[in-house]
Amino acid sequence: MSTPASQQPSPQLFFQIINAHQSTEALKAAIELDVFTAIGEGNATASDIAARCQAREKGIRVLCDYLTIMGMLTKQDDKYALTLDSSVFLDKRSPGYLGGATEFLCSPMLTDSVRHLSEAVRKGGTAMEDDGTIGPDNAVWVKFARAMAPMMALPAQLMAKLVDPTADRKLKILDIAAGHGLFGIAFAQNNPQAEITALDWKAVLEVAKENAQKAGVAGRYNTIEGSAFDVEYGTGYDLVLLTNFLHHFDAPTNETLLRKVHAALADGGRAVTLEFVPNDDRVTPPESAGFSLTMLVTTPSGDAYTFAELERMAANAGFSRSTLHALPPTIEQVVISEK
Amino acid sequence: MSTPASQQPSPQLFFQIINAHQSTEALKAAIELDVFTAIGEGNATASDIAARCQAREKGIRVLCDYLTIMGMLTKQDDKYALTLDSSVFLDKRSPGYLGGATEFLCSPMLTDSVRHLSEAVRKGGTAMEDDGTIGPDNAVWVKFARAMAPMMALPAQLMAKLVDPTADRKLKILDIAAGHGLFGIAFAQNNPQAEITALDWKAVLEVAKENAQKAGVAGRYNTIEGSAFDVEYGTGYDLVLLTNFLHHFDAPTNETLLRKVHAALADGGRAVTLEFVPNDDRVTPPESAGFSLTMLVTTPSGDAYTFAELERMAANAGFSRSTLHALPPTIEQVVISEK
Repeated sequence: MSTPASQQPSPQLFFQIINAHQSTEALKAAIELDVFTAIGEGNATASDIAARCQAREKGIRVLCDYLTIMGMLTKQDDKYALTLDSSVFLDKRSPGYLGGATEFLCSPMLTDSVRHLSEAVRKGGTAMEDDGTIGPDNAVWVKFARAMAPMMALPAQLMAKLVDPTADRKLKILDIAAGHGLFGIAFAQNNPQAEITALDWKAVLEVAKENAQKAGVAGRYNTIEGSAFDVEYGTGYDLVLLTNFLHHFDAPTNETLLRKVHAALADGGRAVTLEFVPNDDRVTPPESAGFSLTMLVTTPSGDAYTFAELERMAANAGFSRSTLHALPPTIEQVVISEK
Repeated sequence: MSTPASQQPSPQLFFQIINAHQSTEALKAAIELDVFTAIGEGNATASDIAARCQAREKGIRVLCDYLTIMGMLTKQDDKYALTLDSSVFLDKRSPGYLGGATEFLCSPMLTDSVRHLSEAVRKGGTAMEDDGTIGPDNAVWVKFARAMAPMMALPAQLMAKLVDPTADRKLKILDIAAGHGLFGIAFAQNNPQAEITALDWKAVLEVAKENAQKAGVAGRYNTIEGSAFDVEYGTGYDLVLLTNFLHHFDAPTNETLLRKVHAALADGGRAVTLEFVPNDDRVTPPESAGFSLTMLVTTPSGDAYTFAELERMAANAGFSRSTLHALPPTIEQVVISEK
């Protein structure tokens, strides 16, 4: 009996991973050069795509072959075509276009920080100056608010439907670290009696207010400028939204914040947390578990928390019960904590 | 009937690829911190590995979870273990250790060049100064010669056995762009009547000579310093080795070189080319096809050539016949061209 192939050592995975950064650069370059839109418009050969993208045929041929190897294009004879995913998410003419997200996901803040990973592992937290992304008024959050909004529209709508399915009563909602504002805005769109108060850095709130205006909910959209740890929230909220926020901090810091949230909620109010939630093994599902690396390199002590950890933080802050909810097809999950 | 999952658009591949650079950094960091050796020595928990690697437990936990997600480690409860691949190739105590290859594969020359991919696509060649890696006496080749030698021992031995299976007659061999010298050295080890002449930049030949000394073949090891395009080769060679060289140049340049090789060969002599050879579709097999991207960003006009292209270059240079030979388990292939 021969040894199964899987039991032969091979350096193939080592090479794949060492060269994986090339995939990121290839996708970034294709978005920058607008290759997907060019192909969506009907340019199929390297020569036609090159003419449309003002590049050399050789360069486009090599790039498009690489994108085909990565599964972002198909190739038949010498003709390239979009996949279903690239036509929906990477052709600029598609309403689902996500290419702008690279402005944040590939921003120097994020890419430089991961290049200092060894140092971050030694320190147990970001090797970047000024506490990485969580320093006061970091400009990266304005970039985030502008670049990531298109990706957040769907999760925001799904979350509003999950938390407020009947949408039949007045709701006072605090949206902490609102960013682009889309989560609070989705609750306002879902329920005409919802009043939103968005909290974030001043420059970031400008983006949220623009989005509230566009969504036609500006009349029910208030703001509080500053740090969620310092400003007064007010009281009597039915819901406090904590979307993609707790992962930036350690558990004691989150408990302090959650106590403040608990105090701001009306009786029967709920804290609604959106997070990348790994299983207890911390290695599945891969996207949520892998998010802890991003937090290691960009924050002093953030993490991707398991549900058990989030539940404990909420309990220590005085919440009576927390429940975990999937939000398919997104990879994030919602934790609802009841006062 | 429901729509198959594969026909639902998903941004998952987009995210995977945008974050793929994190995998490269995670593997680099793990090699820098010597995490694989630490685990091979029996340190299994994040706490023990952290103590051995002089890092924080939190940092090691996040890094090792990421390596587990990538398939470079396994995790059971809170204990990490090496995979077969990582024990053979990434534990420093293993004779197969390849971690040093990152000194070349992750050198600023290679990583910076791919970060200028858009510009390279526009130009149809490297956006780096001084012709990228092919400028005269580029120091990257000394780094290459030192870092990549451990990876080349096996392909070199396989190639010597393929080309000189009987090893029973005198052979005069020219090893062009010898680098670490391992290819010529393997022929000398395979056949005690083989005489090697290695050609490369002066500083690179120092590495090749060290390796010839270590291999015990220094007495049959001669050198020619300079550019393969400029220096005199001499004549009467039975074999001329062109390992990982032609991909740096365009076809006319390679034909000029191959004509010079043809003239240096004795009657019945053979040029032996080792290359990443994609199929005619240029998108399979993935590793060989994807190599064209590395050539696009690091050279003015290099490429990963198909066998049809390599055969044509050899024919135009006067060779009578070329044949293609796989070299398993390596992903490169050998082209033997007969005078």
